[in-house]
Amino acid sequence: MNIRSKGILFTLFLSVCLLAMSLNLSTKAVANEQTSPSSDVVWTAETSNPNVLGWMKGFPPPPDKIIRFDNGSYFEFPQMRWSVCHFQQLMPTQSVSRKLFGAVPLEKNELPELNQVTFMPWDATKPMTWEQAFSANFTDGIVVLHHGKMVYEKFSGCLTPANRHAAMSLTKSFVGLLGEMLIAENKLQEDRLIKDYIPELANSAFADASVRQVMDMTTGLDYSEDYADPNAEVWQHAAAGNPLPKPKDYTGPRTYFEFLQTVKKKGEHGRSFGYKTINTDVLGWLISRATGQPLTEVLSEKIWSKIGAEMDAFFTVDSIGTPFAGGGLNAGLHDLARFGQMLLNNGMVANQRVVPEAVIANIRQGGDLQAFAQAGYSSLKGWSYRSMWWITHNQHGAFMARGVHGQSLYIDPAADMVIARFASYPVAGNAANDPTTLPAYEAIADYLLKRD
Amino acid sequence: MNIRSKGILFTLFLSVCLLAMSLNLSTKAVANEQTSPSSDVVWTAETSNPNVLGWMKGFPPPPDKIIRFDNGSYFEFPQMRWSVCHFQQLMPTQSVSRKLFGAVPLEKNELPELNQVTFMPWDATKPMTWEQAFSANFTDGIVVLHHGKMVYEKFSGCLTPANRHAAMSLTKSFVGLLGEMLIAENKLQEDRLIKDYIPELANSAFADASVRQVMDMTTGLDYSEDYADPNAEVWQHAAAGNPLPKPKDYTGPRTYFEFLQTVKKKGEHGRSFGYKTINTDVLGWLISRATGQPLTEVLSEKIWSKIGAEMDAFFTVDSIGTPFAGGGLNAGLHDLARFGQMLLNNGMVANQRVVPEAVIANIRQGGDLQAFAQAGYSSLKGWSYRSMWWITHNQHGAFMARGVHGQSLYIDPAADMVIARFASYPVAGNAANDPTTLPAYEAIADYLLKRD
Repeated sequence: MNIRSKGILFTLFLSVCLLAMSLNLSTKAVANEQTSPSSDVVWTAETSNPNVLGWMKGFPPPPDKIIRFDNGSYFEFPQMRWSVCHFQQLMPTQSVSRKLFGAVPLEKNELPELNQVTFMPWDATKPMTWEQAFSANFTDGIVVLHHGKMVYEKFSGCLTPANRHAAMSLTKSFVGLLGEMLIAENKLQEDRLIKDYIPELANSAFADASVRQVMDMTTGLDYSEDYADPNAEVWQHAAAGNPLPKPKDYTGPRTYFEFLQTVKKKGEHGRSFGYKTINTDVLGWLISRATGQPLTEVLSEKIWSKIGAEMDAFFTVDSIGTPFAGGGLNAGLHDLARFGQMLLNNGMVANQRVVPEAVIANIRQGGDLQAFAQAGYSSLKGWSYRSMWWITHNQHGAFMARGVHGQSLYIDPAADMVIARFASYPVAGNAANDPTTLPAYEAIADYLLKRD
Repeated sequence: MNIRSKGILFTLFLSVCLLAMSLNLSTKAVANEQTSPSSDVVWTAETSNPNVLGWMKGFPPPPDKIIRFDNGSYFEFPQMRWSVCHFQQLMPTQSVSRKLFGAVPLEKNELPELNQVTFMPWDATKPMTWEQAFSANFTDGIVVLHHGKMVYEKFSGCLTPANRHAAMSLTKSFVGLLGEMLIAENKLQEDRLIKDYIPELANSAFADASVRQVMDMTTGLDYSEDYADPNAEVWQHAAAGNPLPKPKDYTGPRTYFEFLQTVKKKGEHGRSFGYKTINTDVLGWLISRATGQPLTEVLSEKIWSKIGAEMDAFFTVDSIGTPFAGGGLNAGLHDLARFGQMLLNNGMVANQRVVPEAVIANIRQGGDLQAFAQAGYSSLKGWSYRSMWWITHNQHGAFMARGVHGQSLYIDPAADMVIARFASYPVAGNAANDPTTLPAYEAIADYLLKRD
């Protein structure tokens, strides 16, 4: 394998890495205009719309409009705005079956006036409308449910009601919920150590972490997700999980499971919150060990076949078919909203119990506030992290699932409201879009509460 | 790229090739026992059941139970019996959306006595029951509809009502039907030449073939699908369509479209039937050129969203996302039966017209009998091939879609019967399973007719 081949394969690995979460790319993010990391073009939601740019149109598409998994460009901006809807065509995936139960229709009660609801973006000097926030956040689709009915929906870019979008780190919250359900069923015990369930991890950092510490991400791991650092462990994680054939001289771990065995400890478990995707990968492994089933099948049986989903979801997988628990879910937006509504209903769907009420209460109570504070999220003051969910601890008791490019599932019990959003915000990391996201969600909740 | 890397990549190409149709592997096929080409083990349906063999079970699976796309073994027997249900996890794919319309339920009217219906396999000395034929044919799932109701269904191996199976050459019949529909809409003209629609093919064998000749596979092509010959053009076709990255020194065609441009003419068009998958690839290209849409989207809009399908189907794709028109469809068995029922109903689904009646009549009338006879299918005497469908010309007016490992869609208008079957017969090529397939279908039709 010569240098040129190595170069190509390193590029392949890099490209997969962008699947993962919590990037900290330095980009010039200014309000609703974004500069691509690789050029000086200033992109708006409109100019970066993949339908406008014509990615993959034509038979064959023109060479400069082709997006491939294997040349590293598929997750650069603006190509990424096409790729978020096309992971199935970019790499191997595994279905999360809705089985063959009928979809539960989402009843509509449209409130177009929501478009005019205004809010003050953080650090801004003038207010923004909900409608303006749609483009400012590079939204691909958003749905608002209120009292269980769809009061607002809007789609753009690559997304329609009938296709699927990368959920990225929203995935973690699905996996966390499954973990809590297995604890409730006594198939996992939150105080037991990981090595008791997964002997293969006995020599890794996870060995003496408890299930709870993994679920709340308070493990002490020598693991960096800093994509700017070529020596960061996240690159080895991505190389291990890449489903493409490995270079002949590749000696590293070849699967997610193999990678997890190489992680070393740093500091103590249980002290502070550290958002690291590999905790979710361990939880995914725990779930499969406890149930004897692939994560996709557990999600299908316990959740997806019971929420009245319209479409199968799917996960990206590694070379031996292991679903990427930390970020591999792709789903329809309406189905994401259905999932949120089930949680808002304390686990019920049409008089059928799907999730024990105590499981949801446990998540909503939140995690260790002090452990969270130590992680230094300046804009998420007073929040906590519990079982892979973000808990706002605001007066409405809102809690969230969050994905790296602005994907959100925002559940506001006080306002009886669910907001489900898929987005392809150019900056990877929610600190960039939170200023026009979180106050917008709060404003809609307040509006709906006042309207009642 | 050294010799070793080349070897690996050649293996990759070989492995994809097995997706294609009409293999003529020489194996010791004896009644319902089959010898794997790569060993002396005698496999039965029971001993080769993928659930019994434990492929891909465990987290991770034991090394000798792992099936990969990239090491060439995924389509060897018996691994193939797992792979036929797992193409989505083996390679990139593209959905055929059912959109969001409700499924049309398949009403049941079970007739368990069908199990005891007997027939005489060709060249056999004693009769076989329908139930025995299930295993003899390595059936993964079979459904019989009679008067529009499901009178029989049985699943085995990797297949359930809620997952999808490789349709392989059944795909061609879907594509042929779409071609006929576009002719009926005047978006394609059957007498026009291929080069008029696809200038890129002006220097290929297809240039002066008519749309009709391509649809009926009476083109004269210098193209061999003989898998036993390492120089056969089918290997170049497979290499071109392989979605994995190409070797650095690879100089051949890189996509299905590029491959088609290299095909040379041999003999005259319009003289004799020659079953060559690449005709369907050309028809897929024609369909996209005529509609401006990917084949998957055309199939979704015209058929899949209108037959009450329960699941999205999907196609395998090449490196630029071109669906493999010649054999890439994967679908649920119930949905395949729904498709067959729509055709049996002359294009109607629940009082809605899906396909013009004349289109189906045109297919059912059959193709050139003499052209077919020249192809020398000794066991299909009197049949013909029309628009990628196999027409039996028997007294019932039965017509079929056929896939290489025993996949069948058998539509018998006289008996008002549809049989949909997915199978993973070890011998690639229907000559091997026809002796226990075609007389079984006829016997069930006769039984149902007599019962009416």
